[in-house]
Amino acid sequence: MRCRQLVEPFPTTTLDEDALDAARRMAAERRPGLVVVDESGKVLRVLPGSQVLRFVVPRYVQDDPALARVIDEQAADRVSAKLRGRKVRDVLPPDGKDRIPVLRDDDTVLEVAAAMAAAHSPLVVVTDAAKQLVGVITVSKVLTVL
Amino acid sequence: MRCRQLVEPFPTTTLDEDALDAARRMAAERRPGLVVVDESGKVLRVLPGSQVLRFVVPRYVQDDPALARVIDEQAADRVSAKLRGRKVRDVLPPDGKDRIPVLRDDDTVLEVAAAMAAAHSPLVVVTDAAKQLVGVITVSKVLTVL
Repeated sequence: MRCRQLVEPFPTTTLDEDALDAARRMAAERRPGLVVVDESGKVLRVLPGSQVLRFVVPRYVQDDPALARVIDEQAADRVSAKLRGRKVRDVLPPDGKDRIPVLRDDDTVLEVAAAMAAAHSPLVVVTDAAKQLVGVITVSKVLTVL
Repeated sequence: MRCRQLVEPFPTTTLDEDALDAARRMAAERRPGLVVVDESGKVLRVLPGSQVLRFVVPRYVQDDPALARVIDEQAADRVSAKLRGRKVRDVLPPDGKDRIPVLRDDDTVLEVAAAMAAAHSPLVVVTDAAKQLVGVITVSKVLTVL
């Protein structure tokens, strides 16, 4: 069985999309991330939702989450302001730090399983030979098949 | 806003549940994992779906996923056999290797965001004061609120 049989659709964004718009779409579509594609639809990266949070949550709060409790609600409101005027490219993690594997549509289910296992990832992105997005595969789908 | 307002239900398992049954339920409920609770319902750990795959996919395939391509379908079929007779406790990662943060139901949204950011996790588990499962919070829910 090839992995193209297991894919489901997933929302995309581009490097130059407004970061706040991208975060809003991720929220509205209830997805843990967005696939980043270029103008031709070629898959470049994945923008994980947790990375958006890394960008908006102050560094000292990430280092000591207990501090989050003493920050008032107004400060939390200002968090989203950090995304204003930013593009998706500003929010992406440094190159090579993506944790979501990208596979080909003719890869096997076992290749998908191995990639998820190695990356501790609940998701892989699947592209065709031209690196166009085919969709994503979830770990529950792989477990269903195996 | 406290995080109890953001939770959604999530399926549970126990240390002594049959691992194949647990994997099947994860697949059937289309979830990326299960929350592990003890007999009293106290939250102990999280069993990520990718960890189930780490257990069933041969080590040499994880080290070199390209090898997965040359393994025949029959071998892939035998993968699920690895779970037979195993319990959830056998499949769990070594202690302390969980990547899913566990928070309290009176923690704030910013605490949840900080924990997700620090752990690169699309999910946190929420318990009450008695460590009983209240539910999980997804990164898209946090983005909705922030």
